[in-house]
Amino acid sequence: MSGTKKTDAFLQRAIELAIQSAKQQGGPFGAVIVKNNKIIGEGYNQVTKNCDPSAHAEIIAIREACKNINDYQLNDCTLYSSCEPCPMCMSAIYWAHIPELVYAATANDAAKAGFDDQFIYDELAKPASQKSISIKHIKHNDANKSFDEWLSNNTRKEY
Amino acid sequence: MSGTKKTDAFLQRAIELAIQSAKQQGGPFGAVIVKNNKIIGEGYNQVTKNCDPSAHAEIIAIREACKNINDYQLNDCTLYSSCEPCPMCMSAIYWAHIPELVYAATANDAAKAGFDDQFIYDELAKPASQKSISIKHIKHNDANKSFDEWLSNNTRKEY
Repeated sequence: MSGTKKTDAFLQRAIELAIQSAKQQGGPFGAVIVKNNKIIGEGYNQVTKNCDPSAHAEIIAIREACKNINDYQLNDCTLYSSCEPCPMCMSAIYWAHIPELVYAATANDAAKAGFDDQFIYDELAKPASQKSISIKHIKHNDANKSFDEWLSNNTRKEY
Repeated sequence: MSGTKKTDAFLQRAIELAIQSAKQQGGPFGAVIVKNNKIIGEGYNQVTKNCDPSAHAEIIAIREACKNINDYQLNDCTLYSSCEPCPMCMSAIYWAHIPELVYAATANDAAKAGFDDQFIYDELAKPASQKSISIKHIKHNDANKSFDEWLSNNTRKEY
């Protein structure tokens, strides 16, 4: 297959996972991670199925891909998602060092189906005092002790 | 114990988890979830240990708490974190419907130890074309099919 056809096939697979999930009472989202033109991780939304608010399709695909290649970074991978990722998943993409994202449905499409990512994007941009949740910063003598331990540990693995 | 003393004890526990983690080559972060004055979930950073970029302390604590109460929402819980959460974890807090957050170290403290959450916050606020990763939107005939399935499924569980 040509590069374009392969891209289409990977995106198609992410969409198929989303459709299957929605039919089986999961959230209507799917994702795959591709490395060297092979799928190394797949996911569909399992929030309600697994009682895990973090179990979005992209996060599950990232977890599976990392497990499969025994690494915590996916530097040379592409994430194909059935839909534009929410801020949790976008942040996970950065933490996973994924350089490339391809998606089909837009955040606006998702909003029409009741998934309002924009609310979270807006909240993240607000200062703590204006966020809708209560946020309290308590100063603590040991607050930085874990960072001191971390920085003095010469065998630490940065991520 | 008074309310304040209990809050101090929960925050202390989150900090202890962070210190223990840093000593054992984990990321220097810890978190606990509290419901009705009892800890129902704990977590420390296991990104490198478990090869999982999403395994931040707060996300692990949320997963454990949800499993323990068999729910995907933590409506009446408080999250105590050793440090101000990154945007992935802040987003997870919203998805989990957690109304209250208490933390000790600041994002600025974390940055000094090499954890630059601000980079991700800044990236999230940028339009796709200006983000540091490649983002491609491909229109697809089936892009909204999973949402149609979802909306027509009367037994769907919203989350």
